[in-house]
Amino acid sequence: MIEIFDSTLRDGAQGKDIVFSLQDKLNIIAALDEFGVDYIEAGNPASNLKDSEVFEAASSIGNIRAKIVAFGATRHKDIRPEEDEGLAALASVNTDYICIFGKSWLMHVDEIIKTTPEENIRMITDSISWLKSKGKHVFFDAEHFFDGYRDNPDYAMSVVEAAVSAGAERVILCDTNGGTFSDEIFEVTEKVVAATSVPVGIHCHNDTGCAVAGTVAAVKAGATQVQGTFIGIGERCGNTNLTSVIGNLSLKLGYALNDRIDMSALTKTARYIAEVANVKLYDGMPYVGKSAFSHKGGMHVDGVAKNTRSFEHISPELVGNERNILLSEVSGRSVIMSKIAEIAPELEKDSIEVASIVEMLKKMEYRGYQYEAAEASFELLVKNYLGKMEIFFDVDFFKIIGETQCEKQSPASAMVKVRVGGKTQMGADEGDGPVNAIDKALRSALKVFYPNVEKLHLVDYKVRVVNSNAATAAIVRVLIETTDGKDVWTTVGASSDIINASVVALADSIRYKLLKDSEAE
Amino acid sequence: MIEIFDSTLRDGAQGKDIVFSLQDKLNIIAALDEFGVDYIEAGNPASNLKDSEVFEAASSIGNIRAKIVAFGATRHKDIRPEEDEGLAALASVNTDYICIFGKSWLMHVDEIIKTTPEENIRMITDSISWLKSKGKHVFFDAEHFFDGYRDNPDYAMSVVEAAVSAGAERVILCDTNGGTFSDEIFEVTEKVVAATSVPVGIHCHNDTGCAVAGTVAAVKAGATQVQGTFIGIGERCGNTNLTSVIGNLSLKLGYALNDRIDMSALTKTARYIAEVANVKLYDGMPYVGKSAFSHKGGMHVDGVAKNTRSFEHISPELVGNERNILLSEVSGRSVIMSKIAEIAPELEKDSIEVASIVEMLKKMEYRGYQYEAAEASFELLVKNYLGKMEIFFDVDFFKIIGETQCEKQSPASAMVKVRVGGKTQMGADEGDGPVNAIDKALRSALKVFYPNVEKLHLVDYKVRVVNSNAATAAIVRVLIETTDGKDVWTTVGASSDIINASVVALADSIRYKLLKDSEAE
Repeated sequence: MIEIFDSTLRDGAQGKDIVFSLQDKLNIIAALDEFGVDYIEAGNPASNLKDSEVFEAASSIGNIRAKIVAFGATRHKDIRPEEDEGLAALASVNTDYICIFGKSWLMHVDEIIKTTPEENIRMITDSISWLKSKGKHVFFDAEHFFDGYRDNPDYAMSVVEAAVSAGAERVILCDTNGGTFSDEIFEVTEKVVAATSVPVGIHCHNDTGCAVAGTVAAVKAGATQVQGTFIGIGERCGNTNLTSVIGNLSLKLGYALNDRIDMSALTKTARYIAEVANVKLYDGMPYVGKSAFSHKGGMHVDGVAKNTRSFEHISPELVGNERNILLSEVSGRSVIMSKIAEIAPELEKDSIEVASIVEMLKKMEYRGYQYEAAEASFELLVKNYLGKMEIFFDVDFFKIIGETQCEKQSPASAMVKVRVGGKTQMGADEGDGPVNAIDKALRSALKVFYPNVEKLHLVDYKVRVVNSNAATAAIVRVLIETTDGKDVWTTVGASSDIINASVVALADSIRYKLLKDSEAE
Repeated sequence: MIEIFDSTLRDGAQGKDIVFSLQDKLNIIAALDEFGVDYIEAGNPASNLKDSEVFEAASSIGNIRAKIVAFGATRHKDIRPEEDEGLAALASVNTDYICIFGKSWLMHVDEIIKTTPEENIRMITDSISWLKSKGKHVFFDAEHFFDGYRDNPDYAMSVVEAAVSAGAERVILCDTNGGTFSDEIFEVTEKVVAATSVPVGIHCHNDTGCAVAGTVAAVKAGATQVQGTFIGIGERCGNTNLTSVIGNLSLKLGYALNDRIDMSALTKTARYIAEVANVKLYDGMPYVGKSAFSHKGGMHVDGVAKNTRSFEHISPELVGNERNILLSEVSGRSVIMSKIAEIAPELEKDSIEVASIVEMLKKMEYRGYQYEAAEASFELLVKNYLGKMEIFFDVDFFKIIGETQCEKQSPASAMVKVRVGGKTQMGADEGDGPVNAIDKALRSALKVFYPNVEKLHLVDYKVRVVNSNAATAAIVRVLIETTDGKDVWTTVGASSDIINASVVALADSIRYKLLKDSEAE
């Protein structure tokens, strides 16, 4: 069995712009545990006082089946382990599992921690023995192992041997700088596995774009623990993306993972963690990205319709993701057809309804709409045409005012009137620019009827000029990505007036939420 | 030598949300050629009429040293090549290099194109021979080669042999579904290279997160052409990211690339292409991402200060990127340095002026400006700072009003006050949306002083959200491309208010014209 060791909360927190609150950390622990990972590295109590709290809080959640791991360094040079504050912090946190790192590259021993090769080994053995004497399970991260091995294989191996002799239960080979290619990782890992009596792990970084491949290569060479971060966040170019590794090992290569893992929750878990970490999940992320199973080219769309294997290496359902046929200016009628069939499977291919929808779509595209990335607007369009939904509200009127005096920007203001059934409601607000102002004004009017609109959160706002030759008089297409914390959807608006286009897309994003809620009832 | 074959404009255009105008395509061709790639696949003339224009337009740019390649399919089944419209389109475009793809997986032959294995081979040989007879150099993309080889190695090899016999000058092994791991790619490629008399290429997709590793493995196995897209855009999870592959092959593995390639322009070129494609370059992208050399952890920062090798697999300067220790928002000091040298060659690299300009730029970038694709705004900034230009005019005040009643859009109106020397002038106009209205109002005020502003024509208007998590309250960056019929230039504005950002970029676009005119006098 291959163990999954997630370091989102520790190495992931080293990523640019990543800041986790205590509640964020607990939410991520719960999500990772629910998905089924084996180990969750929750923080470095010696480097960050706040990191200690999480161990206390996590132990009180209850029913966490994953092992919570605290991370830290070996003792400092030339002192006894009981004198080391870092080790004391590790011993004191409320968890039984500790992962400590030590140097296995002589350059680092000489130039960074500035000690002798012998003292470096003692720092490792002392620290492990001492933590064991406190009743802890200890894993050892051999930092820069591959650089160290390239430089001096005997010394690198002696570090591993020392850690095992001192009682480390796992030795993890780290490609800390992310510069090692998978063939070298395979060869070196194979040698370490052959020479080592405890399970060996692998910890890669993505500086050459090969972290996932390196991790898979190490497993093929006999490593049985994979370390990474669930969605790949981490220092510089990030850590090994665990969603990719888990998909590869389980679905493509047939390795056993622990029984608790629910592969069909892979996508959901990745998107949830992205939400909590406040990062946009890259659309093209293997297995879990929004476009990981999107087909745009006419030949690809045609192929997938005949046999999904023709352009898909796995079925999206296996990881809880979905196939997405993109509508584009180059896609033919067959693409539109299959998209309509998803929404209204009862329609015959050559029915009048389908022909009308195709006609309507052409008109909308002529006006600047494009539905390839706005599947929510497309669904609304089709369901509304077929009488399968109510429209929920209309926007009767809006007005925006913006003003700038000698480069001093004032808030823009907006007012809007919505109509729900027979009732109307005005809303007004100001904001950073007219789009933000009207977004807020619209919600303030609608929440009177639909309190749920306050739960919506806009993830992304994109603007594209459609006929760019007309420049500022051009038609602009606005794409808005919205989430309610569970699902993410995209809506579109197009107009020669950017405010107007934004209002259309905003209104659709709210209608889609209301539609989903009503269908779920 | 390893050949670099870029397919940003063809396979990259299959990516979600990617739409290139003709001018975008020409800009990308110029940037790729300037960087030094060997082949630029510019489009598929048979599938998209618009794709034909680019070959005509590219041939008139002049001084393009890269070979421009047209992509297409083999002939349809059961007809003669001279009857095939796709081949006719390929033969007619203005370029000597053609890349055609054919099936090498029997499942596709049986189920997708529904023909016999023998006819499939004839489709390939006929098409290559016919294109050769038209004087074209032909490359052959063996689609789904690795899936096909796994399924039936003899048939897959016979496809390659047929293509070579018919005159293909390169055979490219495609992992079309992106599901093959690098060890398998290595083994299979090694066999094909040994059995094939023409150079072999590799074309991967990133569905397992291993496209870069697979491409590197193929090169180690003897492939000498790497296909991909410069920043990895493409169908589903994208194509092989060429920036990663180029960095790996050249800087880490010592393969020779063509002499024209300037590795220090890798980052600049990637960022420029991202701007033109209107996608956000992923911060953690190996080599070229904004945080590819960012150090956040205390131990890492300390280590890098002692020896940069301690936490960097290469030096960022080698690829024109930069180390980022202070978590600043700033990118590309070396890029900035070389741009300053272009505008003011007399400045010493470590002069106070240069340091001040860099400081000023950092402040602007922090506010959301980015000058990679807005060289005109950059030139104005530097020349203004150095006292090398007059400012021509100030925008003292503007006000916009927009209104929409029951989906009936009224024209937006704008008024603006400009100051030139001691004089002020108000202008007002209405337009399609507030940006168009203020554009017209601004010109109507300025033409009193500068009649030439009426000759300006806006070519493109792009909007990008900088910090997309703030959604409609986010900072937006506006890029405006302007022409006077002779030159084309791009200016930038950034603000949380889209109107404000547009006015800044519009004002710069006019100032740049006035500056050029005054310098020409």
